[in-house]
Amino acid sequence: MISQDICPAEPWAVRETRLDTSLLAQTESVLALANGYLGMRGNLDEGEPHGIAGTYLNSFYEDRPLPYPEGGFGYPEQGQTVVNVTDGKLIRLMVDDEQFNVGSGVLHSHERVLDLRAGMLRRNVDWESPAGRRVRITSRRLVSFTQRAVAAICYEVEAVDRQVRITVQSGLAANEEQAKVSDDPRVAAALKNPLIAVEQDREQHGAVLLHRTRSSGLLLAAGMDHVIDCPSGYQEETDVRPDWARTTVVTLLPPGGRLRIIKFLGYGWSTSRSTEALRDQVAASLNTARYAGWDGLVAEQREYLDDFWDAADVEIEGDPTLQQAVRFGLFHVLQAGARAEGRPIPGKGLTGPGYDGHAFWDTEGFVLPLLMYTAPRAAADALRWRHSILPHARDRAATLGLSGAAYPWRTIGGAECSAYWPAGTAALHLNAVVARAVEEYRLITGTELDFGPEILVETARLWASHGHHDASGAWHVDGVTGPDEYSAVADDNVFTNLMAARNMRAAADACTRDPSLAERLGVAPDEPEAWLAAANAVHIPYDERLGVHPQSEGFTRYAPWHFPESGSHEPLMMQAPYFQLYRRQVCKQADLVLAMHWCGGDFTPEQKARNVDYYERITVRDSSLSACTQAVMCADVGHLELAHDYAWEAAVVDLRDLHGNTRDGLHIASLAGAWSAIVEGFGGLRSHSSVPDLAPRLPSGITRLRFNLRHSGVRLLVEADHTTARVSLRDGEGATLPILLYGEEVEVTAEKPVTRPVVPLEPLLPPPQQPPGYAPRPSGQS
Amino acid sequence: MISQDICPAEPWAVRETRLDTSLLAQTESVLALANGYLGMRGNLDEGEPHGIAGTYLNSFYEDRPLPYPEGGFGYPEQGQTVVNVTDGKLIRLMVDDEQFNVGSGVLHSHERVLDLRAGMLRRNVDWESPAGRRVRITSRRLVSFTQRAVAAICYEVEAVDRQVRITVQSGLAANEEQAKVSDDPRVAAALKNPLIAVEQDREQHGAVLLHRTRSSGLLLAAGMDHVIDCPSGYQEETDVRPDWARTTVVTLLPPGGRLRIIKFLGYGWSTSRSTEALRDQVAASLNTARYAGWDGLVAEQREYLDDFWDAADVEIEGDPTLQQAVRFGLFHVLQAGARAEGRPIPGKGLTGPGYDGHAFWDTEGFVLPLLMYTAPRAAADALRWRHSILPHARDRAATLGLSGAAYPWRTIGGAECSAYWPAGTAALHLNAVVARAVEEYRLITGTELDFGPEILVETARLWASHGHHDASGAWHVDGVTGPDEYSAVADDNVFTNLMAARNMRAAADACTRDPSLAERLGVAPDEPEAWLAAANAVHIPYDERLGVHPQSEGFTRYAPWHFPESGSHEPLMMQAPYFQLYRRQVCKQADLVLAMHWCGGDFTPEQKARNVDYYERITVRDSSLSACTQAVMCADVGHLELAHDYAWEAAVVDLRDLHGNTRDGLHIASLAGAWSAIVEGFGGLRSHSSVPDLAPRLPSGITRLRFNLRHSGVRLLVEADHTTARVSLRDGEGATLPILLYGEEVEVTAEKPVTRPVVPLEPLLPPPQQPPGYAPRPSGQS
Repeated sequence: MISQDICPAEPWAVRETRLDTSLLAQTESVLALANGYLGMRGNLDEGEPHGIAGTYLNSFYEDRPLPYPEGGFGYPEQGQTVVNVTDGKLIRLMVDDEQFNVGSGVLHSHERVLDLRAGMLRRNVDWESPAGRRVRITSRRLVSFTQRAVAAICYEVEAVDRQVRITVQSGLAANEEQAKVSDDPRVAAALKNPLIAVEQDREQHGAVLLHRTRSSGLLLAAGMDHVIDCPSGYQEETDVRPDWARTTVVTLLPPGGRLRIIKFLGYGWSTSRSTEALRDQVAASLNTARYAGWDGLVAEQREYLDDFWDAADVEIEGDPTLQQAVRFGLFHVLQAGARAEGRPIPGKGLTGPGYDGHAFWDTEGFVLPLLMYTAPRAAADALRWRHSILPHARDRAATLGLSGAAYPWRTIGGAECSAYWPAGTAALHLNAVVARAVEEYRLITGTELDFGPEILVETARLWASHGHHDASGAWHVDGVTGPDEYSAVADDNVFTNLMAARNMRAAADACTRDPSLAERLGVAPDEPEAWLAAANAVHIPYDERLGVHPQSEGFTRYAPWHFPESGSHEPLMMQAPYFQLYRRQVCKQADLVLAMHWCGGDFTPEQKARNVDYYERITVRDSSLSACTQAVMCADVGHLELAHDYAWEAAVVDLRDLHGNTRDGLHIASLAGAWSAIVEGFGGLRSHSSVPDLAPRLPSGITRLRFNLRHSGVRLLVEADHTTARVSLRDGEGATLPILLYGEEVEVTAEKPVTRPVVPLEPLLPPPQQPPGYAPRPSGQS
Repeated sequence: MISQDICPAEPWAVRETRLDTSLLAQTESVLALANGYLGMRGNLDEGEPHGIAGTYLNSFYEDRPLPYPEGGFGYPEQGQTVVNVTDGKLIRLMVDDEQFNVGSGVLHSHERVLDLRAGMLRRNVDWESPAGRRVRITSRRLVSFTQRAVAAICYEVEAVDRQVRITVQSGLAANEEQAKVSDDPRVAAALKNPLIAVEQDREQHGAVLLHRTRSSGLLLAAGMDHVIDCPSGYQEETDVRPDWARTTVVTLLPPGGRLRIIKFLGYGWSTSRSTEALRDQVAASLNTARYAGWDGLVAEQREYLDDFWDAADVEIEGDPTLQQAVRFGLFHVLQAGARAEGRPIPGKGLTGPGYDGHAFWDTEGFVLPLLMYTAPRAAADALRWRHSILPHARDRAATLGLSGAAYPWRTIGGAECSAYWPAGTAALHLNAVVARAVEEYRLITGTELDFGPEILVETARLWASHGHHDASGAWHVDGVTGPDEYSAVADDNVFTNLMAARNMRAAADACTRDPSLAERLGVAPDEPEAWLAAANAVHIPYDERLGVHPQSEGFTRYAPWHFPESGSHEPLMMQAPYFQLYRRQVCKQADLVLAMHWCGGDFTPEQKARNVDYYERITVRDSSLSACTQAVMCADVGHLELAHDYAWEAAVVDLRDLHGNTRDGLHIASLAGAWSAIVEGFGGLRSHSSVPDLAPRLPSGITRLRFNLRHSGVRLLVEADHTTARVSLRDGEGATLPILLYGEEVEVTAEKPVTRPVVPLEPLLPPPQQPPGYAPRPSGQS
């Protein structure tokens, strides 16, 4: 685990104060740079040692077969795995006759800083070679938010006290050796040499390499260009081979002399374009970057991020770790989605090969709400991707014998890649979660996505064809898997049923809002009627005896899970078969509790309190998607201290590697969930209508909270301490926004902030216990 | 499909009157010979053409990996596949300079007869070579019931009208080429060259080849020896290579002259013995066979079968097809189990590679009851195999986090080989079915198996650890799959719950019967109490509104299956995903109806009538295990004509290739089920106590039924027509047997048969409909 002594709690940076090579794989994820199009793990410039070398282009994947020992109808035959593309980060250094390597010689100091405002990874090294030659190396790396195909590195070497011969090799490398990362079935299968060389082009100060993937046939171009500055003179040459290119700079540095190399990187890929077109595109990217220059790229990056933080920042007083973590999370969520532009936001963003690089429901469920409130254009782009894969989703629904569209549980390109249907196909709720995101986008931004209603209608059709009315008229959804993956193939999962009902209502509403829609999408007159009839008759199981909702039919009747007094905290799915897990009262993650967060209006405050109490006792949080939801709902029912602990857990999931797999990439949805824990948990924000609903209430460990939101085209600032809450508009005159503050309808204008005393909430029940050994760590405990 | 014009309904034989090479694969299964230890498909002597070449030794398997695209805890990593062992059936013939082949020249006649009394496959061929040389070939093949390692072939060639040169090559061939048989996931994966040559030995008139399997490391020896008779003289030589051996006989036959070759085959295999020991064992088998000679083997075979038929035969008047089919079934069931002696009886017997050669619950559920009543020693042997794999089953239970023993869903050697847990691990009922077989053996034979109680106790422990009492005390079994594989991972499956309760009661009873048992098996004093408490509190769901039992909790509330008006009769699992099938009211096979057959005392006659009516309408019989149960229960509630149709369907499953996969081997359990349909359906036999319960009632198409049974060491004959039923004992003076006849307790003695008028049964409801297109064919329709 990365501990606080290596990584202190700074408000705007993640600083690694010394290098621990055993943590390399984790820090590569934590220090990754990306813009949603291009991602680079925080590998050391010199490439080795590394945990996992990684450079990713959104949606650039290779096929892989999915062999089943016992197949079945509708099982996907082919999976997709994100490819480690040509590595352009490489800069190797030779000092006199010795290769710079953090493991040899004397590392006098080694610091890496991820600067959240600059959008840059800085590295400062003071190294003495085994032969006693001392150099200072500084590198700065950025993946540009403003030039999405571009990354750049500013690499400097300084001779400290003696004259040294310096050789720098700046490279491109395709088909890097990949270690098998884990036996965990969830971790991506390693792919060996997926890239076939197509063409190479040597430029004046660099090269472009073109490759094609073996099976998926995607074309890739990666190029580098250099600007070299060395007052003492240097020699430069470039070698090119099918799988690598190398620009070598040799110089003799006097004591205090410096060599500075700016390396520009350009990437491009295509399913259909010609090698010539792609080669030219990458060359153009390199030219544009060179034209901007290093300083220009740095300035653009800062400007982009200033604009983001201006309407996204969350300030937390009293808990510096959480302050750091929530900004770290916001930054990485932005990096995952900023320039995806019609491509998915994968579960790990572009920070690692985990989950094969697939996108899941996490994106719409946890990531997009944050983006809608802070970078709505990126949220719209992500939903545009969902729209673009409707043809795949329609095919999938047809395969399943259903109408409308069935979105893939996990995918890169749109085809279902889930090879275990009980936790894939059966998790039909994903479709309602996509629909919810479409609907929330409209409520939060005040703008209807032109393609939104089509998604609503197609997913509503799916529900109408899968659900059914029983003899008494009640509408059921059977044999599905809710969010809790330890209770698969269940009937009338409350979350699923409520979300499906909401999905169908939203579709019917969309048809009412725009009657032309029905014609355009071929909606028969009786379809919206059927959707509303189903939504109004939806069956929500309730256990009268216990006074709680079973998360699905019969759940509260199942046997308890026997938690050992002490034991491994490996995920239960690594310790017990699904056969045992699925029909025991144990939850991998919030399920019914998530239903109460997202469909809060369907529960009374007392039901919420009782349900939270019940499910806290049986939820093990083996999914990183759980803590944030538990934080929000614990806050909702008045357990603010527990909520704080969960918010902390969600926020530091990767900074503290709580799930032991940060090496494979960051938990983007958990990071977004940390924002949700604070803004929706302590800020009380809910998005059930176009009127934002706020009710700030802080735990004792947070003395003051300020957060910014975008809503309906204006910027909003919410501030609260333990006594007073204040909401103000930050945009020009005349702007007004109706809000709910502690349930009171008020209008906020640019001129007149609204201030109210905090309305305290007395919890109905005492704080609940978690299963033995599963209590969250007290917040701030490093 | 094999039609009646090729295969007429003869009472004691299956006669193929002409050769249709498109049916070769099917007829190879139908005409297979086996004794439970050694099995040979009905391949043509000359080896080609063939559908699937096959020679099998019970439990001789090769490992194969089970690769999962998404693995899970407790998934078996390795499967087992039956191996086509060294083929000793081969006898190739050259007539002058042309190879005998059924596809060349003129086939004047070709007849094959499986003689059910002789236990022999006869073949008569009248062939004219392309050059006009005419020969008559007769071959007779047997796999000995009395010398289990031995098979023998009597091969004769006669020159018809001209002098011909004859060359006969009698061979052994290892690693025969195997075609991939099907894409159907249920069909065995083809294994390529699994045998590695170890040693070869040339004998005076034959050879022995030793091989070892590549991964499982099993040692195999196959030997041949010959006795040649040719009045006109001949030359003989034997060649041996690592993968083949060949004894060649050359002669010149005058018109009317004959060459006769007796080929003796000996087989042996071992997990642990030395090559020397195994080689000697096979040589000894060959010597013993040669000592008996062909005529001796034929006579022993006849004697063995006479004894079997004497106490097993079923005579049906009025339906010659059913008469043939039920004897065909009895014969093949005997062949599957007669000499298995501590090895399993696979789902396909030793007739083909289907299901990878695995044994399932079919054996205990459907095959062993027949054997207990006709060849009880074979039934005891099969249960001895179950006992021998208890260590595997205990390991499996521990992996699943359960106590006691969890038997594998499918296996050869005892390890779980099922790679899809919802239709494997979750089908926990298998354990109760094994326990039922142990208990029925005691009731039917009057003898307790010495190892029986251990099985009862270990399976009871499994149930006690998996089930649980709810807050009101009711005992539940959740998340299991009953017999109906279209409704997996369900709660409180009625069949499973009733069978589990019965399993636990039987274990408690065994501990009461023999108090020393508790000590020997380490049964704690509170264990039997807990078993009885669970059994007494077992929850059996019942739908008051419909007046039927849902086959599992909630089943009758699920959506109906939408049957197309017309459409493919491919199994639904080939047309729809499990995701759809599992929570629809559609049954692959009898499930609740099987519960009513095996646990009849737990249902009232009215419940039975209503349940049969309900489930008939939704059962598609995609499993060959269904028709027999439907036959029994349709007869039970008075739908005798429908029962007759189902009995016919079960009986001709392979003679008419009703499931389209007879090529991969016979459906041994369905064949046994046909016996059950007749004896338990029309004979009304039930085995719920040590007193056989009989109630013969015949459908209109059967004018008279006679069947033999062994019970408590005596032989029983039951005869019935439409007016009178008669039960007699066939064993010596003084023997008496209490029976129930139409519910009346009577004593049958050897001296005094019991005769009663048939008690008619008025059905409560009219005959039910099946789903559109799924009505059984009227019996006798070929």
